[in-house]
Amino acid sequence: MTNPPHATAAVRDGLSRFGVATIHEAQGRTGLLSSSISPIYPGAHISGNAVTVSVAPGDNWMIHVAVEQCQDGDVLVVAPTSPSDAGYFGELLASALAHRGVRGLVIDAGCRDVAELRVMGFPVWSQRVSAEGTVKESIGSVNVPVVCAGRLVEPGDVIVADDDGVVVVSRLTAAEVLEASHAREEKESRLRARYHDGELSLDVGEMRERLARKGLRYLDYEEYRKELRQ
Amino acid sequence: MTNPPHATAAVRDGLSRFGVATIHEAQGRTGLLSSSISPIYPGAHISGNAVTVSVAPGDNWMIHVAVEQCQDGDVLVVAPTSPSDAGYFGELLASALAHRGVRGLVIDAGCRDVAELRVMGFPVWSQRVSAEGTVKESIGSVNVPVVCAGRLVEPGDVIVADDDGVVVVSRLTAAEVLEASHAREEKESRLRARYHDGELSLDVGEMRERLARKGLRYLDYEEYRKELRQ
Amino acid sequence: MTNPPHATAAVRDGLSRFGVATIHEAQGRTGLLSSSISPIYPGAHISGNAVTVSVAPGDNWMIHVAVEQCQDGDVLVVAPTSPSDAGYFGELLASALAHRGVRGLVIDAGCRDVAELRVMGFPVWSQRVSAEGTVKESIGSVNVPVVCAGRLVEPGDVIVADDDGVVVVSRLTAAEVLEASHAREEKESRLRARYHDGELSLDVGEMRERLARKGLRYLDYEEYRKELRQ
Amino acid sequence: MTNPPHATAAVRDGLSRFGVATIHEAQGRTGLLSSSISPIYPGAHISGNAVTVSVAPGDNWMIHVAVEQCQDGDVLVVAPTSPSDAGYFGELLASALAHRGVRGLVIDAGCRDVAELRVMGFPVWSQRVSAEGTVKESIGSVNVPVVCAGRLVEPGDVIVADDDGVVVVSRLTAAEVLEASHAREEKESRLRARYHDGELSLDVGEMRERLARKGLRYLDYEEYRKELRQ
Amino acid sequence: MTNPPHATAAVRDGLSRFGVATIHEAQGRTGLLSSSISPIYPGAHISGNAVTVSVAPGDNWMIHVAVEQCQDGDVLVVAPTSPSDAGYFGELLASALAHRGVRGLVIDAGCRDVAELRVMGFPVWSQRVSAEGTVKESIGSVNVPVVCAGRLVEPGDVIVADDDGVVVVSRLTAAEVLEASHAREEKESRLRARYHDGELSLDVGEMRERLARKGLRYLDYEEYRKELRQ
Amino acid sequence: MTNPPHATAAVRDGLSRFGVATIHEAQGRTGLLSSSISPIYPGAHISGNAVTVSVAPGDNWMIHVAVEQCQDGDVLVVAPTSPSDAGYFGELLASALAHRGVRGLVIDAGCRDVAELRVMGFPVWSQRVSAEGTVKESIGSVNVPVVCAGRLVEPGDVIVADDDGVVVVSRLTAAEVLEASHAREEKESRLRARYHDGELSLDVGEMRERLARKGLRYLDYEEYRKELRQ
Repeated sequence: MTNPPHATAAVRDGLSRFGVATIHEAQGRTGLLSSSISPIYPGAHISGNAVTVSVAPGDNWMIHVAVEQCQDGDVLVVAPTSPSDAGYFGELLASALAHRGVRGLVIDAGCRDVAELRVMGFPVWSQRVSAEGTVKESIGSVNVPVVCAGRLVEPGDVIVADDDGVVVVSRLTAAEVLEASHAREEKESRLRARYHDGELSLDVGEMRERLARKGLRYLDYEEYRKELRQ
Repeated sequence: MTNPPHATAAVRDGLSRFGVATIHEAQGRTGLLSSSISPIYPGAHISGNAVTVSVAPGDNWMIHVAVEQCQDGDVLVVAPTSPSDAGYFGELLASALAHRGVRGLVIDAGCRDVAELRVMGFPVWSQRVSAEGTVKESIGSVNVPVVCAGRLVEPGDVIVADDDGVVVVSRLTAAEVLEASHAREEKESRLRARYHDGELSLDVGEMRERLARKGLRYLDYEEYRKELRQ
Repeated sequence: MTNPPHATAAVRDGLSRFGVATIHEAQGRTGLLSSSISPIYPGAHISGNAVTVSVAPGDNWMIHVAVEQCQDGDVLVVAPTSPSDAGYFGELLASALAHRGVRGLVIDAGCRDVAELRVMGFPVWSQRVSAEGTVKESIGSVNVPVVCAGRLVEPGDVIVADDDGVVVVSRLTAAEVLEASHAREEKESRLRARYHDGELSLDVGEMRERLARKGLRYLDYEEYRKELRQ
Repeated sequence: MTNPPHATAAVRDGLSRFGVATIHEAQGRTGLLSSSISPIYPGAHISGNAVTVSVAPGDNWMIHVAVEQCQDGDVLVVAPTSPSDAGYFGELLASALAHRGVRGLVIDAGCRDVAELRVMGFPVWSQRVSAEGTVKESIGSVNVPVVCAGRLVEPGDVIVADDDGVVVVSRLTAAEVLEASHAREEKESRLRARYHDGELSLDVGEMRERLARKGLRYLDYEEYRKELRQ
Repeated sequence: MTNPPHATAAVRDGLSRFGVATIHEAQGRTGLLSSSISPIYPGAHISGNAVTVSVAPGDNWMIHVAVEQCQDGDVLVVAPTSPSDAGYFGELLASALAHRGVRGLVIDAGCRDVAELRVMGFPVWSQRVSAEGTVKESIGSVNVPVVCAGRLVEPGDVIVADDDGVVVVSRLTAAEVLEASHAREEKESRLRARYHDGELSLDVGEMRERLARKGLRYLDYEEYRKELRQ
Repeated sequence: MTNPPHATAAVRDGLSRFGVATIHEAQGRTGLLSSSISPIYPGAHISGNAVTVSVAPGDNWMIHVAVEQCQDGDVLVVAPTSPSDAGYFGELLASALAHRGVRGLVIDAGCRDVAELRVMGFPVWSQRVSAEGTVKESIGSVNVPVVCAGRLVEPGDVIVADDDGVVVVSRLTAAEVLEASHAREEKESRLRARYHDGELSLDVGEMRERLARKGLRYLDYEEYRKELRQ
């Protein structure tokens, strides 16, 4: 597929200012990819428009096809049609993508050349690191809806990824989610300041009464032990 | 539970000078938490008194309750009542705990905001990294015995954690274990020096005779191959 | 077994100039150990002649025996006879091996003292990090063929390991594989330069015609969506 | 959501005559749920229209809501919004569903009361068996698109499940897939008869020439071994 | 340890009338062993007093010691001190235990001779099936508190196991839990009858109002789809 | 490879009288495949000469080639060159193999059509059940040494498989292993009879003295608890 619609650059780049956890919360605890996907090196934090690729197991041919569909500000999202931990992606493909302004890769499979990718600063979130090569025999699809690490990703959706993982934001709701992320971040800043000063979340969040209603009791440890022994 | 007994500060802090592997050996190869628990960033090494928390799956409410029970020199130990890989803990709770002098967190579940925690220097040993949020619906227990990553942890026990994992030392035996750790460390220092000078553990440990009794033989490789082919 | 044959130092050291992924490709996508084996710290890249050790589960006695058989330029390769995630290896054994010029360890089990090993610069590729101790009760074998992480390793084979994993090269074909690795690296350098200049692998690799024959079609996204809705 | 469109009863029931493997092949190797989902007892084989349920982790409240939306010939498809292995479903809910003519359950989580379900003949395909209870605290969604065991399932799609696993067939293409399954089954019957008579797939499938072109050679074993030793 | 206290035979045998899921609920959703433990054949359902055994990894010596401590109505509960999937137990030990009236085995490790055990009718709940042998080198402990599959089991506690898994009931609360199980079972019987007659849990459980308060809305599917497209 | 040497029919069939656990013990606790390989239905017990197949991940072409190399009394042993859980094998290939007298399949990957295979009585030991199809694009090797589920299998070796798993016996030592299995079985028969009569392995195996030397003590439970509390 060519020319899928996508979120605006302003919204996409605005979202890069927020962490994955914040955005996931801001959109109602949805869109988080499985925690089995993790960054190949720490410290990267990106956002971008998804260019999606559905590949056969152990076959990276369609990634080569997808490169041509990528443009500045994109993130490549690759999902095999059945589980594979082969190393679909390495520094050569990363060079090609970096040239086009692609910000990173999310792949529900393996990745290789991780030392080189760290040096290049091309971040990858993958299921594992594997040097295992792939073939170029079967065609697949580019820019179709894919299920990647347990979540539906549509082409043009916004992907945000950091050390905590990867979240997908629908292009249709990305502007709202950006706003909600701002709001959440502000609220968290205020909380952080109060916690930093030693206030307790029990008080800041007015939890004590609701906890008591649910039955929370405070017992002295020694008395509890005595009770247990009887 | 409030005010559980705990190991003395001298013993607790003394144990922080030894690695997890040394302490685990020194207390007779007991108390090691499952190796499925690992640090979110390398290089941390702490000891502290356990404040234990039993939480419902996907529910971090009791961690908020536990904060109030924490004091300087503690380590929070969190175990869900059934398996969960949600991200129970992030930088806001870490700020609150750091304010109180808590040295770190051990959790048999997920953790989020790992980039921020690394910057803050608040170490966490967790089953995984996950941005998945938790709810605040169910109450649990603080400072009761919990099974965390396959080991029983009682409130007030000493927790030591480093890049190798996490070990729990009963508060009742912590002083003895401290002494045994000193002894083991000294023995290892002597061994290290001898190995460094090129002595073999076969000789240092007087293993040759016992190995021979168990049947160890040395064969020349080529002769063995010939034997195999016949 | 003593004195197994091995690859020449020139070939062994020549291979250290190439990444695991390159060598794996150069020898026809064979010899790669399972991706469940990974380095305990990033950045190491070694080659060496395999000294193989078959050990009982949870028993590291034979590693002590193997130390004596190691010489400059070797890599120790340890495989338990049934699965074990105990920590067979730590800094004391590493000191002894480093003294003899051993370049690293590959073990299909656990490793401990990882902070100390990182400081010493003694690299280990292991299944996991575990402080769990091992016993010294059962004898095993040194310098026999072993299956380590799913691959057959014979004593004297060349092991290459980096951040992508571990590959074994038979001593019988190591010289050819070295040559093939050179050839592959040169080809990849040329590709890298062309990708860097913005050429597409679709064109460089002359894939377009073959893709078309396999049925690849380019559709405009909006038209595809309309088609889907009918 | 109420009243989603669905495949016709004729198509849905026609598909129940074919195995999951056949249907998966007939629709171009798509739609297969992860093999981590398996039947709780052997021998069941069903088809039905999907009633989808998105539930919170460890919370089965929405299954109770979904019961009311189920009708004769349906299959319930349940996916938690984040991983959970709790036992969301047991014999009480099965009684309620069986009363309404529901043919089975597919759940990317745990199931309990498996002995009772086997006796009732209410089949379940689940990630695991777990007696762990769930709460009724959070609402979710019924009859929305869900990702279950790695595949997108839309309400009204046809689900076919047997001892090999679970496949989803889009309601939009179910009639075509039924026809293609017939065709494939007929082809396989012919092959089965020929194989049964001792013909080789190499000949029946005319593979010999293509294999030779790919480089297949036949060597006598002893000669090959001699070659290896040189 | 010899002669630990235990639950009465009446309570122990009374609990065998209830399923694991019912007892787990009746004791407030506690005590359930990890779902990684499953029966080696379907259909067994037992209760018994726990004789606990702490064994070294890959070493079954203490099981031989434990046999002598077993008596009629017991269940053996075995936990290795570090993870092991070896086959600690087979038909010979089962013969010895059956002779003494032991009702089954729960082991957080492997089991072998499963065909023979099925024929004998000696049920085992284990982490896996493995023919791997164990050694007899290290002593451990019998009738001490152990952590088995994530739960603390004390000698004399009641173990109930069926196709859903294994639950432990403290001997101190077993009588209360028996009563609570009766109550729960009666309640479930009433529910079962009403569900069987076609009543909905939404009505029986008076959930509709609470769901509405939490925000549940019913939308017609086609309207929802239209909404989504805008 | 054609015409590999193999064990004699007498030895091969003699081994089928012994369980996998017995043979594994009789050959010195070697040769057991990983317990991740299990039978697709209970109750099968076979022995046969290995016809080995090395296949590409997700590609079953070489199994078709191997059929022609199979003869009466063989067992097919299939190992992918990198991990794959696709369903390489189903009833059509089983029909072809059954026609030739092949006794079963061992595969370190997935299998499908398990209901049909159970009806046919063609046993399979596989890593998992998966309906996922495979392609026919890459050639591999037949009758070469392969690593299957962690063990080296050479063509012509004897494979024995039952409900406990799979063991490989080298054709070079199969006659000795047969004899040792007889001896072990006789010894176990004697033990079984004695255990059945209520003798304890502690006495039969004369373990008491050795246990005492290792430090085993018998303590009364109540005294131990008192000790603990002090």
